[in-house]
Amino acid sequence: MKNSGDRSPSIIRRLPKYYRAICELSEITISRVSSKELGKLTGFNPSQIRQDLNSFGGFGQQGYGYNVKNLKENLEKILNLTTKKTMVLLGVGNLGNALLNYPGFNENGFEIVAAFDRDRNKIGTEIGGVKVHDIDTLQEFLKTNTIDIAVLTLHKDVAQRYATICAENGIRGFWNFAPKKLRLPSRAVVENIWLNESLYTLGYFLTEKIREEDELLNNTNYDFIEK
Amino acid sequence: MKNSGDRSPSIIRRLPKYYRAICELSEITISRVSSKELGKLTGFNPSQIRQDLNSFGGFGQQGYGYNVKNLKENLEKILNLTTKKTMVLLGVGNLGNALLNYPGFNENGFEIVAAFDRDRNKIGTEIGGVKVHDIDTLQEFLKTNTIDIAVLTLHKDVAQRYATICAENGIRGFWNFAPKKLRLPSRAVVENIWLNESLYTLGYFLTEKIREEDELLNNTNYDFIEK
Repeated sequence: MKNSGDRSPSIIRRLPKYYRAICELSEITISRVSSKELGKLTGFNPSQIRQDLNSFGGFGQQGYGYNVKNLKENLEKILNLTTKKTMVLLGVGNLGNALLNYPGFNENGFEIVAAFDRDRNKIGTEIGGVKVHDIDTLQEFLKTNTIDIAVLTLHKDVAQRYATICAENGIRGFWNFAPKKLRLPSRAVVENIWLNESLYTLGYFLTEKIREEDELLNNTNYDFIEK
Repeated sequence: MKNSGDRSPSIIRRLPKYYRAICELSEITISRVSSKELGKLTGFNPSQIRQDLNSFGGFGQQGYGYNVKNLKENLEKILNLTTKKTMVLLGVGNLGNALLNYPGFNENGFEIVAAFDRDRNKIGTEIGGVKVHDIDTLQEFLKTNTIDIAVLTLHKDVAQRYATICAENGIRGFWNFAPKKLRLPSRAVVENIWLNESLYTLGYFLTEKIREEDELLNNTNYDFIEK
């Protein structure tokens, strides 16, 4: 268990950011990158980046930096992007629709294999190449298909009910967009994306920054008058 | 500046989670809540919650807990949800569409006043009650309208270009869904929502958890054989 035990969740959360930067460099066919340049692309401190990557075995060379292709492959291995992960999407509203039409997940092994909704007008249709099933058939579907991740884009009032059905039928990964804290067995892994909370946080920091600058401005004026 | 200086960003990120829980309680007309119950609803330690709320002036009473209505109002004040914030949305693709059709932001003062795209078929239409403008008219629009936040749901290759136009024309808040680290003046506040990164993180933790349990299982079997 040592492999993961000595790495904090915050390191893990930085890895996809390194991966995004490395993909950008790879697209414009840059072959070599320093931790300093990676720092500029990701906003992290170069020594932090070196330390993080060292904890997975290095991949860099002093004075040379990192080979882009090599680091990209290693990050894909660490993040397990080379293995296929199957997903079901529950709730084909606007957000569910957007996710079904997003081609980016498939590229890295995340495949939505079926969508579920209770709306008769949606059941039977195909969105982004994925068939929409009656959500009442979810349990039956899960009994005959091995699914790694449930994407929850349904209303918060029903999120728990369907998350429980998923957990009881073998799903362990939950990508939850419903603004609701899910109660799931400890074997489940949950990643929440709560849009409102993100927006409120932005609003708070924005207000604070403007207030601080106003105060600074007022204090400056005051000093000026004092003199 | 003391007011915000002694509170870490991580406290601020927990506040919207307390607010979500309090709203849930308020909906089902519960009038009083303990930090222990708030802990169950949010997943945080009760003493952490008390400490966080104390740093904003308390709002609770020993032995009684928190008055739901009172705490809700105080959190709304702290998060500044009572003041209107104007937003423009750039990029009316699937995700942009989903956000335009989401009624939840408006409730707490975040109002999308205009959307922008370059697609001739979208320009002039209305989505979720918001008019779509030609993105070439963005600068002109910003010169005559005061906008607090830009919602970036456009392609990562053009995100920086339009973010710069926004910043140069008075926008200070950026809610960025484009998987690209933006370079903006220090007066800007950026909140990124990067779906791919969130999914990769989920994939990583899921794989790790399964691997750890397999190892544990193997070790257990081994011990058994040894005996």
